Amino acid sequence: MFDIPTYFLLSPIIAGVIGLVIAVILYFRVKAQPSGNETMNRIAGYIREGAMAFLVREYKVLSVYCVVVGIVLYFALGVVAAIWFVVGAVLSLLAGFVGMKAATFANVRTTQAAATSTKGNALLVALDGGAVMGLCVGGLGVLGLGAVYYCYNESAHLGTILHSFAVGASSIALFARIGGGIYTKAADVGADIAGKVIENIPEDDPRNPGVIADNVGDNVGDVAGMGADIYESMVAAIVSAMAIALTIEAQFLPALLTGEAATAEAARWIAISLPLVLSAVGLFISIIVIFMARALKNSKPANVLRLSLMLPPILLTLVCFIALPLFGISQNVTWALAAGAFGGALIGLVTEFYTAMRPIRLVAEAAITGAGTAVIRGLAVGMESVAVPMVIVVIAAYIADHMLGLYGIALAAVGMLAGTAVVMTVDAYGPIADNAGGISEMSGLPPHVREITDELDAVGNTTAAIGKGFAIGSATLTVLALFSAFNMEVNHVRLAAGMAKIQLDLTASGVLIGILLGSILPFLVGSTTMTAVGKAAGKIVQEIARQFKEIPGLREGKAEPEPARIVDIATSAALYEMILPGMIAVVAPVAIGFILGPQALAGMLAGSLAVGATMSLFMANAGGAWDNAKKFIEKGGLPGHKKGSDAHKAAVVGDTVGDPFKDTSGPGIAILIKVMSVVSLLIAQLIALK
Amino acid sequence: MFDIPTYFLLSPIIAGVIGLVIAVILYFRVKAQPSGNETMNRIAGYIREGAMAFLVREYKVLSVYCVVVGIVLYFALGVVAAIWFVVGAVLSLLAGFVGMKAATFANVRTTQAAATSTKGNALLVALDGGAVMGLCVGGLGVLGLGAVYYCYNESAHLGTILHSFAVGASSIALFARIGGGIYTKAADVGADIAGKVIENIPEDDPRNPGVIADNVGDNVGDVAGMGADIYESMVAAIVSAMAIALTIEAQFLPALLTGEAATAEAARWIAISLPLVLSAVGLFISIIVIFMARALKNSKPANVLRLSLMLPPILLTLVCFIALPLFGISQNVTWALAAGAFGGALIGLVTEFYTAMRPIRLVAEAAITGAGTAVIRGLAVGMESVAVPMVIVVIAAYIADHMLGLYGIALAAVGMLAGTAVVMTVDAYGPIADNAGGISEMSGLPPHVREITDELDAVGNTTAAIGKGFAIGSATLTVLALFSAFNMEVNHVRLAAGMAKIQLDLTASGVLIGILLGSILPFLVGSTTMTAVGKAAGKIVQEIARQFKEIPGLREGKAEPEPARIVDIATSAALYEMILPGMIAVVAPVAIGFILGPQALAGMLAGSLAVGATMSLFMANAGGAWDNAKKFIEKGGLPGHKKGSDAHKAAVVGDTVGDPFKDTSGPGIAILIKVMSVVSLLIAQLIALK
Repeated sequence: MFDIPTYFLLSPIIAGVIGLVIAVILYFRVKAQPSGNETMNRIAGYIREGAMAFLVREYKVLSVYCVVVGIVLYFALGVVAAIWFVVGAVLSLLAGFVGMKAATFANVRTTQAAATSTKGNALLVALDGGAVMGLCVGGLGVLGLGAVYYCYNESAHLGTILHSFAVGASSIALFARIGGGIYTKAADVGADIAGKVIENIPEDDPRNPGVIADNVGDNVGDVAGMGADIYESMVAAIVSAMAIALTIEAQFLPALLTGEAATAEAARWIAISLPLVLSAVGLFISIIVIFMARALKNSKPANVLRLSLMLPPILLTLVCFIALPLFGISQNVTWALAAGAFGGALIGLVTEFYTAMRPIRLVAEAAITGAGTAVIRGLAVGMESVAVPMVIVVIAAYIADHMLGLYGIALAAVGMLAGTAVVMTVDAYGPIADNAGGISEMSGLPPHVREITDELDAVGNTTAAIGKGFAIGSATLTVLALFSAFNMEVNHVRLAAGMAKIQLDLTASGVLIGILLGSILPFLVGSTTMTAVGKAAGKIVQEIARQFKEIPGLREGKAEPEPARIVDIATSAALYEMILPGMIAVVAPVAIGFILGPQALAGMLAGSLAVGATMSLFMANAGGAWDNAKKFIEKGGLPGHKKGSDAHKAAVVGDTVGDPFKDTSGPGIAILIKVMSVVSLLIAQLIALK
Repeated sequence: MFDIPTYFLLSPIIAGVIGLVIAVILYFRVKAQPSGNETMNRIAGYIREGAMAFLVREYKVLSVYCVVVGIVLYFALGVVAAIWFVVGAVLSLLAGFVGMKAATFANVRTTQAAATSTKGNALLVALDGGAVMGLCVGGLGVLGLGAVYYCYNESAHLGTILHSFAVGASSIALFARIGGGIYTKAADVGADIAGKVIENIPEDDPRNPGVIADNVGDNVGDVAGMGADIYESMVAAIVSAMAIALTIEAQFLPALLTGEAATAEAARWIAISLPLVLSAVGLFISIIVIFMARALKNSKPANVLRLSLMLPPILLTLVCFIALPLFGISQNVTWALAAGAFGGALIGLVTEFYTAMRPIRLVAEAAITGAGTAVIRGLAVGMESVAVPMVIVVIAAYIADHMLGLYGIALAAVGMLAGTAVVMTVDAYGPIADNAGGISEMSGLPPHVREITDELDAVGNTTAAIGKGFAIGSATLTVLALFSAFNMEVNHVRLAAGMAKIQLDLTASGVLIGILLGSILPFLVGSTTMTAVGKAAGKIVQEIARQFKEIPGLREGKAEPEPARIVDIATSAALYEMILPGMIAVVAPVAIGFILGPQALAGMLAGSLAVGATMSLFMANAGGAWDNAKKFIEKGGLPGHKKGSDAHKAAVVGDTVGDPFKDTSGPGIAILIKVMSVVSLLIAQLIALK
């Protein structure tokens, strides 16, 4: 038996612990910052309480889910699988909890820094708040999987345990993303419609009881939901690569090692270890980049953040290029990683183009002739934006496949997610800056404060788009890898049982039926989540209208609104409405797998990948384009069409449609295809012989 | 050599000729009807001239295309292939020409019948006008393919000639559908925006110079474009079934014949003949159903049309069930046909549900809170509407596959299209009734005339939705069959050359890359067509605004508008803008096939099928739901929200978005996947050995 080097086994754990220690230090550093006057603290308190109340209620629902699935796993796959499923889930919850706590401390402290200190210090507070989430996500992911590998690397059940861990992570991500997405957009759309249309009061006006819920939503959706999503992406990418390494037939094991003495067994164990070790290296690099960004706090915020997103791929490639030969590992690994890492960065830039450059001017101009043409143009931009990112994914996959076969594709996904901690830091920074602006407005601080927070917020919007591009690109690569891992696992079990390999020919009717069935699912998740946002927003509009009617003096600003009611309505609606789309993602692969067998399930994964990857890109980018077209008009981009003009109103309609597109349905579909693949991988051994 | 029975060879030709003779009789019958007063004739003349001018200019563009592709085919596949490619194309053009001529005679005569005779007679005129197109499409399709089969049934090149014919039909359908779709929706959206928003005058107001172009568009898009599309569907379904029968390996030839003496060769020739013979039977049945509908002219129009759409599947099943055993042919054929035929009818009913029943009430209610929520809800309805039709297609394919393997799937598509002539009759009826209403309004006829034409028009809208459901459902089945035919052809050539069968395993990287690339194409066609409509509509709005500014007295109704200018702008824009999406469909399979080989091309077809089938259903049904939600409000469906209310305006925004969705991009994507499959089938022999 090949001895895995101890530093391979330990490095993920060490990296994870270091990341978490820094997260804790930053957490207390954020909390120690001044938090402003009494009004600011009261408003921030509402937001924090609302966000935490949502999280607590969401976690209760998810506990039930975890217990049920845990019991099923206990009977189907044994106690160890059930335990690590729960651990995978709990670590996700933990990251969400700590990260959101930090974000809801950081928002008001960013406002206060903007009010009393420099823009650089305000940026720093927001960045630190985001980094808590970023390092928790990156640290817990690497630590958790590192622990599994350390404990079970000699167990025959390593694969099953890894899959269970990944299903735990995926399940939480699914519900957190969809529930958070419904919450944030229902509150946003509801508050907007009620405020702008029915009551005619400006955005973030303290009289509008929906504004607090809107700010809560930013945290719930873009911090907790996004965090669970990115944690899941990282876990799934690592697990898919390890699973492929575990089950690939020896003759396909690529020339991973360069030494003469390299054996197939050594290559296999190196292949199993590498994804985790490389992710540990990625975490170290991320920590360095985060500190570099902190040091550059006085530079232009947009440049700092963009640089932060682009550096990890470059550094990881450099490190691997220098270090891998020292361990006798082939440079093919470097190139596969680099294909993914640079592909991810490129996709981010393409996303930025479609959501921040010429296309948004076209959408804004289309708004001049009305809401109909604005919506049409935004949809057209979103559809067009699908092509280049998909081609980049194809090229990355092609290079990686050329270097190391299917294992290479999985490594490319690992490479794309190497900067997870940084991506998450920047993503969580966005809602903190957004909240900071809202708190400034609601507390009646002077305009120069809002100017600073607005600049920070605008940068956050762009980086959020880049982050979304990364997320969907990596999801596509990860699903490709998971898909391959699923098929290998099925064949592994079949060969062991003396059966022939599974027939996955494209013309087999089972495969074709699976493809067509799989193509339906993204549309179902899209439909249920869009409907959910519409329904929940409708309830919020009604409640806001009620408050304006029944609370005397509210319209005149003499009485306080009741934001807690809105928060409660949004929470209940989101938690209720997330169940249907969530169940589709979990139940569909299980049902198809057990009823129609692995052939149809493989087809279903391929069909939903094709539709899901493109639909989620389309929806995310169309939404981003509408959002920024509206802001473009607000900033005076269209001479003669100011804020409040008909063109602006038309652009607002586009933005309203874009809200659930980019923050609920688009991400929901992306996570759907990941969850289905992870669940399929887990049940592969149970259905392989069908 | 097995002797094909003469009645098998002759029946398609006889059926085609009979269909065409009846078409000619109905054509002259329509033309002989009274056409009303001078104003009516002048307006109808504008429409006819505009429609014919478009057709002539479109045909010039298409001639260039046909000559270029014909020359390419001459060098690649020989002179016979080139000739039959041109014949396949020319028959499509011919059907479009005659059918549109009939439709533009029938519209004003329907108005006149409504004004001076009974509703039943008005229905009859419109129905006869539609039947000319329906019988031309059905007759020319069966006759053309029948001629190929009659002449070349002993030729070794039968397959290539059939494929060439189908590519000719497909090419015309592609450009006619996309060009017509851009024209009709650019004119519709342009006239609506200019009329309702900029100039504030009602729909079909004679002062609006865009109204004539809008009425021209109905003919260009829904008669000529739809006709070419349906002609292509029928041809492609028959050719795919014949191609499978030609290339399927003998041992896979299903138990088609029941007799003891049945040989594999007899089974093969019966299998090759059946699709054409059954389509001939379908044409006979369609003729009977059309005459039945004419006889029922005084019944409720909605019932007459719905019955007409549902009868052909039932009658075809009955006829086959009784007749096939007499020829020693297995009932498996009946069940495969029935699966498709009833599946098509079911899909039509599901489409009607989503575009005419409860979902449109939900969209209308969402319009109360604004255009944003109306658009969101419509998109959600469209996404939801994908599921059931796709499941129906899967079940139909599953049954057909169970009966007769892949050949059965092709037969199911033939069965779904058995009522082609009826479907086309009902589809062409729609724009005739719509035009009749417009002519009545523009000629200032009394309100009771408009009431009758409005009722006829409303029925047409519903049946148009059913027809679209049929079209997309049959497209999906046809593409499944074409896809199988492509793979068989590739393997046929490879086996003949002593090579191994092509590897189409879902985990092969070439296949996966193809799937991902294929998933992009429907979005590109969606994007380019949506943008095209937006751009062309913008030009029309500008021209209308110019006319209102520069023509003195136009606003007061004292001067005439210049509709010809609008018609010219719409024509130029549509013909220019159709080129890019059209070229994508033709070039993509050729490029991928020759560069990446048949493995990637098969993957690409599968990827674009999964995305294209679902996207086109989504877009067609969302568009239908918005359209009817608007009409629901106009008819007073929402108490307190009349025509002109904010809710109605919000619904109009949805309708504007829905226009290119349902009549340009959705059908464009559906035809994209068919054209790519047909082109792939044609080039299969050239790339098989790569």
